[in-house]
Amino acid sequence: MPSSVAAFAAAAADTPLAPLAIERREVGPQDVAIDILWCGVCHSDLHYARNEWGRTVYPAVPGHEIVGRVREVGSGVKRHKPGDLVGVGCMVDSCRTCEPCTEGEEQFCAHQIGTYGGVEKGTQRQTFGGYSRSVVVDEHFVLRIPAGLDPAKAAPLLCAGITTYSPLRHWGVGPGKKVGVVGLGGLGHMGVKLAHAMGAEVVVFTTSPSKFEEARKLGADSAILSTDPAQMKAHNNSFHFILNTVSAAHNLDHYVRLLRRNGTMCLVGAPAEPHKGPGAWLLLGGRRSVAGSPIGGIRETQEMLDFCAEHDVTPETEVIAMGDINAAYERMLRNDVRYRFVIDMSTLG
Amino acid sequence: MPSSVAAFAAAAADTPLAPLAIERREVGPQDVAIDILWCGVCHSDLHYARNEWGRTVYPAVPGHEIVGRVREVGSGVKRHKPGDLVGVGCMVDSCRTCEPCTEGEEQFCAHQIGTYGGVEKGTQRQTFGGYSRSVVVDEHFVLRIPAGLDPAKAAPLLCAGITTYSPLRHWGVGPGKKVGVVGLGGLGHMGVKLAHAMGAEVVVFTTSPSKFEEARKLGADSAILSTDPAQMKAHNNSFHFILNTVSAAHNLDHYVRLLRRNGTMCLVGAPAEPHKGPGAWLLLGGRRSVAGSPIGGIRETQEMLDFCAEHDVTPETEVIAMGDINAAYERMLRNDVRYRFVIDMSTLG
Repeated sequence: MPSSVAAFAAAAADTPLAPLAIERREVGPQDVAIDILWCGVCHSDLHYARNEWGRTVYPAVPGHEIVGRVREVGSGVKRHKPGDLVGVGCMVDSCRTCEPCTEGEEQFCAHQIGTYGGVEKGTQRQTFGGYSRSVVVDEHFVLRIPAGLDPAKAAPLLCAGITTYSPLRHWGVGPGKKVGVVGLGGLGHMGVKLAHAMGAEVVVFTTSPSKFEEARKLGADSAILSTDPAQMKAHNNSFHFILNTVSAAHNLDHYVRLLRRNGTMCLVGAPAEPHKGPGAWLLLGGRRSVAGSPIGGIRETQEMLDFCAEHDVTPETEVIAMGDINAAYERMLRNDVRYRFVIDMSTLG
Repeated sequence: MPSSVAAFAAAAADTPLAPLAIERREVGPQDVAIDILWCGVCHSDLHYARNEWGRTVYPAVPGHEIVGRVREVGSGVKRHKPGDLVGVGCMVDSCRTCEPCTEGEEQFCAHQIGTYGGVEKGTQRQTFGGYSRSVVVDEHFVLRIPAGLDPAKAAPLLCAGITTYSPLRHWGVGPGKKVGVVGLGGLGHMGVKLAHAMGAEVVVFTTSPSKFEEARKLGADSAILSTDPAQMKAHNNSFHFILNTVSAAHNLDHYVRLLRRNGTMCLVGAPAEPHKGPGAWLLLGGRRSVAGSPIGGIRETQEMLDFCAEHDVTPETEVIAMGDINAAYERMLRNDVRYRFVIDMSTLG
């Protein structure tokens, strides 16, 4: 039997989020029903709620950094049992048969189903995200939250955590590597913590000297004022890897020239307007690369959660009540958040 | 004793190349004096002669695809002896102590000395290229031309050959890989031949259906009309690697979307105006990369020459006399060359 559950939804692009009852599908043989405890607030939530990508279906229930407790499992479920603390990230299903899926990189499946704004396989209904009482998800897309990880702080790992962890791992960040992080927001601050925990030398690029101390507290070895050409030039040809988390259009070449031979800058944000660069001469000069990376696969997301538990890496969060979400969006737009809002879903009412 | 040798030089950006006597340095202990037999004509020669990069010192003697015979060697020379058939490419020296140099990747040395337009270490004089009777080069930068390689056809390998061979090797092109080549000029046609010899499936992108048959003759498995969106779309997400040899600004995204997961497009040309793209979403969507690569190191250049001898890979060339060089430049500007001019240096007079 489908069940009606409380949620917070946007009814249109220009209306605030408000309470709405939504329907969750019946728990199938492979499904896990999760009572949601915490839900992180990602900038994508705001983009989606306000139809800034032009593909929102209303009503829209955002939220893809979900932590909760298993209430019920289907007859075929092997990986989870009632009472387990679990997480759900940006995907709730995929085709399971394409090359990326069979290689555990579901983030590249052309038919992946988003936690919100996707279309559910069986019901053909829109998927609704984690700003809600509960959710029903195929067990393959349900992560274990390891013991020792604060559940509230685990929530943002499901998107901000894996989005930064995956490229850091893919490009071999570790001891002996000099790693830059551009942008110190929800993604950037996780990039700093993770790269530091992986043993790399971490340098933060910021436009504000006031963030130097913050950057060091997060684990950065140093910070560079990106608006100061002299400071930037002193690091020319020196970075093995730069994680660029800025989603506003900017001149990539300011960073490309800082890459050493064979260095890569990976973008994890995508601006509405195109970036400037990269210039071909700069790429040629050091066999440099500019790349991009989206979230991560399910196997790697579990690996990331286990890594964070082992190395005590968690995001800086500010807990809010569900009713604060519209104010939180406004604060997010002013960068007034250190560094991730997490909704206490017990406040949903 | 320095020696005066015949050469062909540009006296200014807007004058045709004409005969000029230049001076070559005395043969030092590590030097090899080479009587030049053949010199390929690279588009860079034209850029330099006409000061299109704004850093030409006149008189300018272009030519960095040099094949000749050793006339004399210095007392400390071990790798070459008089009578040997040898080659010289784009570099005649480097610092020898930096990380790229010690790792055999002199192409990334910040102090590499260009075959023309560089500044010679000892004499502090400008270097002159291969449009000349002879040249004196440190033995480390002198390549062996393997037996079985036609000397005239070996010349373009020293720039066009290594510039395409190096990225194909670096990005692991071989059997089971689908490789695209954008642009069918001096570089592109070598890219096709080399990728084919390496065992890859090779697809040529061209703006002219008339080149389909040519592409196949060069070793391509198929060709795509890059101006036909339907033909392009049919190859979405399918290329492991794309070698982009076009040096005119264009929209990179037309090709980036054809890369499969983890695919790379490598630029080997650099336009005066910036390219359009790559778009961040396209990079993110498949963890794709856009990179660049310049020539190659000395060790790899020797490897490439040996590979070409073994696999019978040589450029398509048209032999010209030295006096034809100005007309050849004009033809090059009209893409009226299949695919590389080589100067018979016996015609220098």
